[in-house]
Amino acid sequence: MWTTPLSSRDAAAVSAALDEVVEELVGEGLVNKWRNEVFTVARRWGEAPLFSLDRGAVSFFGVRAYGVHLNGYRYDGENLRLWIGRRNPAKLVAPGKLDNLVAGGIGGGLTAAETLIKEAEEEASIPKALIARARAVGAVTYKMEVPQGLRDDVLFLYDLGTPDTFEPRNTDGEIVEFMQMKARDVLALVRDTDDFKFNVTLTLIDFALRHGLLTPEDPEYLSLLTGLHRGGD
Amino acid sequence: MWTTPLSSRDAAAVSAALDEVVEELVGEGLVNKWRNEVFTVARRWGEAPLFSLDRGAVSFFGVRAYGVHLNGYRYDGENLRLWIGRRNPAKLVAPGKLDNLVAGGIGGGLTAAETLIKEAEEEASIPKALIARARAVGAVTYKMEVPQGLRDDVLFLYDLGTPDTFEPRNTDGEIVEFMQMKARDVLALVRDTDDFKFNVTLTLIDFALRHGLLTPEDPEYLSLLTGLHRGGD
Repeated sequence: MWTTPLSSRDAAAVSAALDEVVEELVGEGLVNKWRNEVFTVARRWGEAPLFSLDRGAVSFFGVRAYGVHLNGYRYDGENLRLWIGRRNPAKLVAPGKLDNLVAGGIGGGLTAAETLIKEAEEEASIPKALIARARAVGAVTYKMEVPQGLRDDVLFLYDLGTPDTFEPRNTDGEIVEFMQMKARDVLALVRDTDDFKFNVTLTLIDFALRHGLLTPEDPEYLSLLTGLHRGGD
Repeated sequence: MWTTPLSSRDAAAVSAALDEVVEELVGEGLVNKWRNEVFTVARRWGEAPLFSLDRGAVSFFGVRAYGVHLNGYRYDGENLRLWIGRRNPAKLVAPGKLDNLVAGGIGGGLTAAETLIKEAEEEASIPKALIARARAVGAVTYKMEVPQGLRDDVLFLYDLGTPDTFEPRNTDGEIVEFMQMKARDVLALVRDTDDFKFNVTLTLIDFALRHGLLTPEDPEYLSLLTGLHRGGD
């Protein structure tokens, strides 16, 4: 681990060297290189990047990756409803699973807020004036063993109350339908099924903890809360 | 550590034996016994109590204690304002410091929600119909060395949007005045001064993280978020 930031020239040299390694790994079938997305790697969130890495190689090296997830909601009378998308069955990761209204990895030099705006447009046709009302509400962390190595993810969370006139529409082919589900029904699916994409469940439990859908009277309240925020720094 | 719950008869016997020890400690000046509040001790939140302990002896033994804190807020046009109380200068702990609208320790066999209702009435004259609208929004944890030993606290957090007609009024003498402060000014005080009671700062940072007053663009965002939720299970 470096203790002082690299210069941007050093970072570019490290990135180029790593890229050669990744090419070899792709050749050996150990990494599925996706050439269109580059993630940056830093010692800690908020620090200058040490180098960048193709998204396809992130879990091979087990470095931390960052994403944004947006829970869209509205009140239908007394009923709190969540906007839930169904992922394209052709997707590589979690095909056909249920998903948040908007989600995406932070890469290509964008900030969390910039990533949210971009993904909101592509995934749900949320206009800039509406997404500007989304509120940063925290983050969840998780580590997960995957065939290629390790996912070590931080998901920054946003909430957006949507007006009655809003209808999401997907434009990038990632989501095949959007539904408004009662929050209570969403939580029951999270508890009892594997219908949701693995990491989306975490964002929904965090939503439930922040919106009083779970309360301290639940014996698992503190375990859930602590489990969602482990080792984010 | 016991691995199976004690019967309530065993718990009573342990509590009585501990009480004798506490009497000795009070005699030796090591514990300030407060005879009016009893905390229960369990292996984990949600499990059956192992024994109960006078509040004054909790930090001597360093066992975990639980409390509730309520952030009251309202929108004054575009300005988000927080209800802030000033503690009585005669209080034993944190005299004259700034505080949340409502806060109190969970003891005497009450649940978190029951404690909130009771303290809301005593500390701020919040009627039952209004406090019923308070929302459970998570918890913060901290450990702190104190002269008597260790504070190992979990604070369950609640948010309450108050109507324009609401005016808090203290009835138990713990708070001498209530103010509506701009949330931005509150955060500046948290950052730059020791005006707030030591653990109230944590509840205010959590509020800021959940209400978009801090965003992922802040380099300390993840450190703050993780630091507030360490070891709560």
